[in-house]
Amino acid sequence: MNTGHTSPLRAKQMIASTMGKARIFSEALPFIKAYRGHTMVIKYGGSAMIDDQLRETFADDVALLHLVGIKPVIVHGGGPHISSAMKRFGIEPRWVEGLRVTDADTMRIVQATLVGEVNPDTVRLINAHGAVAAGVTGLDANTFEVTQADERLGYVGEIQKVNSGYLIRLMDDGLIPVVAPVGRGPDGLPYNINADTAAGSLAAALGAEKLVYLTDVEGLYADLADTNSLIQRLTISRLTELLGSGAISKGMIPKLISLREAMAGGVKQSHILDGRVQHALLLEMFTPEGIGTMVMNDADAR
Amino acid sequence: MNTGHTSPLRAKQMIASTMGKARIFSEALPFIKAYRGHTMVIKYGGSAMIDDQLRETFADDVALLHLVGIKPVIVHGGGPHISSAMKRFGIEPRWVEGLRVTDADTMRIVQATLVGEVNPDTVRLINAHGAVAAGVTGLDANTFEVTQADERLGYVGEIQKVNSGYLIRLMDDGLIPVVAPVGRGPDGLPYNINADTAAGSLAAALGAEKLVYLTDVEGLYADLADTNSLIQRLTISRLTELLGSGAISKGMIPKLISLREAMAGGVKQSHILDGRVQHALLLEMFTPEGIGTMVMNDADAR
Amino acid sequence: MNTGHTSPLRAKQMIASTMGKARIFSEALPFIKAYRGHTMVIKYGGSAMIDDQLRETFADDVALLHLVGIKPVIVHGGGPHISSAMKRFGIEPRWVEGLRVTDADTMRIVQATLVGEVNPDTVRLINAHGAVAAGVTGLDANTFEVTQADERLGYVGEIQKVNSGYLIRLMDDGLIPVVAPVGRGPDGLPYNINADTAAGSLAAALGAEKLVYLTDVEGLYADLADTNSLIQRLTISRLTELLGSGAISKGMIPKLISLREAMAGGVKQSHILDGRVQHALLLEMFTPEGIGTMVMNDADAR
Amino acid sequence: MNTGHTSPLRAKQMIASTMGKARIFSEALPFIKAYRGHTMVIKYGGSAMIDDQLRETFADDVALLHLVGIKPVIVHGGGPHISSAMKRFGIEPRWVEGLRVTDADTMRIVQATLVGEVNPDTVRLINAHGAVAAGVTGLDANTFEVTQADERLGYVGEIQKVNSGYLIRLMDDGLIPVVAPVGRGPDGLPYNINADTAAGSLAAALGAEKLVYLTDVEGLYADLADTNSLIQRLTISRLTELLGSGAISKGMIPKLISLREAMAGGVKQSHILDGRVQHALLLEMFTPEGIGTMVMNDADAR
Amino acid sequence: MNTGHTSPLRAKQMIASTMGKARIFSEALPFIKAYRGHTMVIKYGGSAMIDDQLRETFADDVALLHLVGIKPVIVHGGGPHISSAMKRFGIEPRWVEGLRVTDADTMRIVQATLVGEVNPDTVRLINAHGAVAAGVTGLDANTFEVTQADERLGYVGEIQKVNSGYLIRLMDDGLIPVVAPVGRGPDGLPYNINADTAAGSLAAALGAEKLVYLTDVEGLYADLADTNSLIQRLTISRLTELLGSGAISKGMIPKLISLREAMAGGVKQSHILDGRVQHALLLEMFTPEGIGTMVMNDADAR
Amino acid sequence: MNTGHTSPLRAKQMIASTMGKARIFSEALPFIKAYRGHTMVIKYGGSAMIDDQLRETFADDVALLHLVGIKPVIVHGGGPHISSAMKRFGIEPRWVEGLRVTDADTMRIVQATLVGEVNPDTVRLINAHGAVAAGVTGLDANTFEVTQADERLGYVGEIQKVNSGYLIRLMDDGLIPVVAPVGRGPDGLPYNINADTAAGSLAAALGAEKLVYLTDVEGLYADLADTNSLIQRLTISRLTELLGSGAISKGMIPKLISLREAMAGGVKQSHILDGRVQHALLLEMFTPEGIGTMVMNDADAR
Repeated sequence: MNTGHTSPLRAKQMIASTMGKARIFSEALPFIKAYRGHTMVIKYGGSAMIDDQLRETFADDVALLHLVGIKPVIVHGGGPHISSAMKRFGIEPRWVEGLRVTDADTMRIVQATLVGEVNPDTVRLINAHGAVAAGVTGLDANTFEVTQADERLGYVGEIQKVNSGYLIRLMDDGLIPVVAPVGRGPDGLPYNINADTAAGSLAAALGAEKLVYLTDVEGLYADLADTNSLIQRLTISRLTELLGSGAISKGMIPKLISLREAMAGGVKQSHILDGRVQHALLLEMFTPEGIGTMVMNDADAR
Repeated sequence: MNTGHTSPLRAKQMIASTMGKARIFSEALPFIKAYRGHTMVIKYGGSAMIDDQLRETFADDVALLHLVGIKPVIVHGGGPHISSAMKRFGIEPRWVEGLRVTDADTMRIVQATLVGEVNPDTVRLINAHGAVAAGVTGLDANTFEVTQADERLGYVGEIQKVNSGYLIRLMDDGLIPVVAPVGRGPDGLPYNINADTAAGSLAAALGAEKLVYLTDVEGLYADLADTNSLIQRLTISRLTELLGSGAISKGMIPKLISLREAMAGGVKQSHILDGRVQHALLLEMFTPEGIGTMVMNDADAR
Repeated sequence: MNTGHTSPLRAKQMIASTMGKARIFSEALPFIKAYRGHTMVIKYGGSAMIDDQLRETFADDVALLHLVGIKPVIVHGGGPHISSAMKRFGIEPRWVEGLRVTDADTMRIVQATLVGEVNPDTVRLINAHGAVAAGVTGLDANTFEVTQADERLGYVGEIQKVNSGYLIRLMDDGLIPVVAPVGRGPDGLPYNINADTAAGSLAAALGAEKLVYLTDVEGLYADLADTNSLIQRLTISRLTELLGSGAISKGMIPKLISLREAMAGGVKQSHILDGRVQHALLLEMFTPEGIGTMVMNDADAR
Repeated sequence: MNTGHTSPLRAKQMIASTMGKARIFSEALPFIKAYRGHTMVIKYGGSAMIDDQLRETFADDVALLHLVGIKPVIVHGGGPHISSAMKRFGIEPRWVEGLRVTDADTMRIVQATLVGEVNPDTVRLINAHGAVAAGVTGLDANTFEVTQADERLGYVGEIQKVNSGYLIRLMDDGLIPVVAPVGRGPDGLPYNINADTAAGSLAAALGAEKLVYLTDVEGLYADLADTNSLIQRLTISRLTELLGSGAISKGMIPKLISLREAMAGGVKQSHILDGRVQHALLLEMFTPEGIGTMVMNDADAR
Repeated sequence: MNTGHTSPLRAKQMIASTMGKARIFSEALPFIKAYRGHTMVIKYGGSAMIDDQLRETFADDVALLHLVGIKPVIVHGGGPHISSAMKRFGIEPRWVEGLRVTDADTMRIVQATLVGEVNPDTVRLINAHGAVAAGVTGLDANTFEVTQADERLGYVGEIQKVNSGYLIRLMDDGLIPVVAPVGRGPDGLPYNINADTAAGSLAAALGAEKLVYLTDVEGLYADLADTNSLIQRLTISRLTELLGSGAISKGMIPKLISLREAMAGGVKQSHILDGRVQHALLLEMFTPEGIGTMVMNDADAR
Repeated sequence: MNTGHTSPLRAKQMIASTMGKARIFSEALPFIKAYRGHTMVIKYGGSAMIDDQLRETFADDVALLHLVGIKPVIVHGGGPHISSAMKRFGIEPRWVEGLRVTDADTMRIVQATLVGEVNPDTVRLINAHGAVAAGVTGLDANTFEVTQADERLGYVGEIQKVNSGYLIRLMDDGLIPVVAPVGRGPDGLPYNINADTAAGSLAAALGAEKLVYLTDVEGLYADLADTNSLIQRLTISRLTELLGSGAISKGMIPKLISLREAMAGGVKQSHILDGRVQHALLLEMFTPEGIGTMVMNDADAR
């Protein structure tokens, strides 16, 4: 135990520093007030899922969000992990019009990777930061019911129904659900689901306040070629314009379409965040300046 | 809609047949009364997990147990699946004194197989039979906390603590937990757990009424060499004698030791069942003659 | 304790027999799933109430229905008991247009017989089979409010209002209500109610899934004179035609009218069962072939 | 609607009269405070059960006790009703050492009378006064489990166990239980129970605050021959002395023995009241002077 | 302990007296039935708040109302206390068109008096009579949100919104709220509210059954000059006529307007009582003749 | 809506700044985890109650503590307000051995000031910062039962019993209780209680985790004469030594004695904070360095 005495000078310096801290908490207060008790669906992927330090600060942020009364739900993807597993097995991917075909063998690897690797690893990561997570697949309690998206693509599912009761009970019990995007088809077999879409559908089904995409870009740009043109806030109408204008990169389009549907389904605000920034979640949620791009409904933009 | 008339003769035959049926329900009544509301931990493995028809009747039985008010918990192994996955990856198993070493690479395959293959497949199987299952790993909500069993064996865990709250809530919500025997080590990493041991520890932690091992043998024999010597019922004392007598096959010994510990921990009755028999669970639970071997406490044997 | 060994032959025979049993449980599974949690009002009368063996199998069936999660409500009559009690008292029945007059003296005997004899005897019968029953009269908690049906008939009541809260609470507490068909008149005095009608009104008030009449006939016949013409299933429309056709016996008419009203009031299915068959309830509920006649709504007959 | 004006004189008179009333409520306040929320078992019998006007004021009192938050439980006898029913049937009572033999025939009449006549009549009586009563026999939910009291007496039961859960739930639901003293024997058959004893056993089992006997005497006398010697309050010790002294009438002895056992079992206070006085219950409970004799524990008499 | 014997004569006298008492309880029974479980807002003021004996009988009455299951809410004023406090401080009241101006200094005295003197004194008074009261100001949990009534009058508030959740929870916890009529203005500062108006608004917000004004007059007169013309009952229509007729004293007008609004907001009955009569509340509520003037809705006057 | 674009430089600066912020939240995480769900009794007084800016940051801090799941209870004093009110009334304080005498007149001013001025002002202050507070006096629901501390001192109470049920329910309802230190004496009259003592008693009665004194000093000094000797942490044993050593200022002694008693009664940690520092509460609770002096149990100091 340190019971050492403190000199007045040292005390003054400490107080100056801690008072800066206090101001920061103070600044966060209105945001905490506004979001607590609300559900926040976070699509977890990209660098934030791979870089070790970013993984730690991500888990830290999720734990803090949970502690101040927000209910986070994590939906993870796993593209790079799946590709690397396929390589290990020596399976050559097949393509139809630029989309990867998920045949039965591929689906086994997808499931083993998402459910058997990424999901438990994410659960462990969060548990190591003091919150309590529980892994969920869309098969558990029939959470995701899907149909085949396109018969040429094989076991790729399109969500028809989200049975959200199981997730709601987990959240009511104080747990953070970590969701693998696999669903049950009409044939009873497992289907892979696009994680961006799964996050959007879940956000709508849960009546989430917020939907957050952790990506590897800074946000949306008014002009793709100009990194000076980062958009901080935009409305759904403006987003629709952008989608029509060609200013959106290919990889971003499915995210934005899912996001727009989720907001049509009742989600209040969505965020495109740069997952390469440490504590990106916290900074967007609890500081007035935020980082990344926030999408809001037209009606809230006045 | 069949509204066709029935001849008196046909009606008599029908009644004769249906009355036989009624007697069977009637016979099951006292067992249903005795077990309803109680927890039954079922170690699922062997042929019952591989043979397609046995898988169906297993799921049927679990659904019926659940419907009459019993709370089943399934703990599955996955030895053959793991071996086959390792072969696919071309990983050569290493052995220490006859026990397989689980190094980091092996553990990744173990987790991918148990959590990413066997577990969701079992969940889907039960869901297809009308009950509602949810997959759980020992990492979820820190359900299994383990320490390293033997440092030469690598990532093999010994359960130190079962945090059963999560499973209890799932059961209270009417779900059937399907548990993969993976736990969290003191280093935060996943460890493989022997499924027989995991089932026993879980049964004790949940205060289960029954612990059931689905195996590929008829039960215990008084004399291993004599298939005429199947034991229908025995006490813990007699079991201990048998364990000392050499009459127990090698593969059965760890099951029986786990079973004995579980009963010392409060489990009332344990069963060694022949999973190769269709509806083995139902027959043991709901018919007076039963199948397999039942182990009871000495005090209950009077 | 029998720990004797079993020969392989004996074991095979046993397994053959028990596997037949397992199939029967398996067959019952979808019916149990469909009915559990639902209320089933059973009009108890005829031979099933008099013959000692039938009484036992009736109680067995009620206990099993209750155990698998169905909520049975028993409404009993007592005609023969009342007639015999009147004879003992030397009271001569009086008739108006073929209907028995219930004057004050007769009503006292009716109440003493239904409430003081048949009701507690039925409660004891069920309690002896492991379920827990509680006797109820329509006077308790003002369950049945009646008006005089016809002033020439004296204390014969027509139900105006069913206060079902009391019965619902008993069922919620896991009890099986056994109901005597006596109600409270506007003058505060007790009135006798036809048990068939009481069962129908109660089924509608409770939102019962099923209404079952235990009778002393096989069911409905397409042609009263031809015992070959038993109808297994029919719709309400067809029932109405039959009622107009003269194919219905006199005794059955009031049952069918009550049944039709109950179904108009929301009951899903009704059954006319032969109470002379042991385990008639179980056979109708849990075997695909059923016995007796089932009435369904036109909309469900597609 | 009377909107007529009031003269000042009339108003003064009214106020004088109403202020007397107010004082009476005021006086009752501490008693209501002391008893509310507590259970009061009332043995109902004698004139209060036969005389029409006394029946009405009894029901009024029970309703008022209930309204101010006391939980009354009524246990009724039915001696005179049984005797008259036996006469009607022409059954000659048999006696062993001065005690009536209850053979099977007699027991049927006892049950028909208590359960089929007195019980529903009492339920109707209370319901007509605005409280809500429900009839209960000791057979319902196995409330009274009895053994044979003396084999020479036939179906006379001695209470071995009171399963009070059913009655407690009725009271929690705001109902007033009206209990017929019939219990279930080890042979499953109904047995008659002395109503005074049943009331005492029930009071102890329910942890009742008070046990009240409505009788046809003023209370206990210090000297049986001297009606000037009514005792208003006495302790259990003094009661034991009196029981030994011969100052207690024969009919009173079983009541006092039951009362003493009930108080040994935890009942706080017992009352012997004159049921021939209108509103006897109310006067004893809510006026400082009381009527009749109150028995208290020695420890409370300081 | 008094165990003295009672002479028969004395007993008879006692019984005659107590039977009169019983009749009074009996008479109160229907009123208790009708009002229990309902909320009754009582404006407490005038002599009943100042005269020591009236204070005691008021508290007695409130405790008895509470005990029989009515939920009283007390709203107090404090005019005379405020005037005397202002005199002590030597503050001269200012007036605008006959209405007192509440400047900042005056408001401080108003708050100190209502919240710091009258409120805790009333809480203590009720607590001393066995019920449990809790003091509340309109600032607690933002119960009263007000706007400035008239800018010339300063800190005089007009209720815009009643947040009644806090009071409802207090009542659910078995407490009697004692409310000081102070509210929070849009500037966050405290404003004084007319107590008559506060009582009316609160009664409407709470869905109260009754609103009672304790005043220093007998009630309403058909002719103000004729004390013979006290009105016992009147309808809202008739009240509106009276308000237009000049038959209402100046002091009574704001009470009647608040009362009329409260009844338009759902209150069933209102009472103008003479608080100078001991036990005025009890007499109005529990005796058929009542005292004072009751106002009912036109629809209830048939 | 600002949708302006951001230059990369500006973005980098922003990120640098916000990342510092994120680290601060991150640092606070373990403290939030440790304290959430726990009760914290805060003695509010001194400059923090008088200086306008300190009042605002105090309310901010209380609101933030509440938002992150801590349950604050505020106990306020009011010495300077009372002195100034007495001066206004021209009442001369009387002293006995250095302690102020609280005669009946003084007590009226004390109550008017604490309950009618400081308490509602503090409630308003907190409500204006987004948490919801409710004012409570020790008279409400008989929260503080006191006896006279010293008859020469008049209406000065010593707490004998804390009835904490009322406060617990307020906290369970999400409210922040603001408590005025006035209690009910055995004569039913209000008594003034030392606020430091009231806070300590309340902390013990509520099983609080923390007891915090906001004072006008930096904390405790090892050597009163040396402002370099501020003690950051000390144990109860060391505190007891200090109390015996003369190193404690007079004003601090009663606080420390109350604190020591509270910790003997189960409080885990106590804090002497400098209320003159903005956000003192937040800094002590959520930063690793803290400010002021923390007292812990000897057992926790290892």
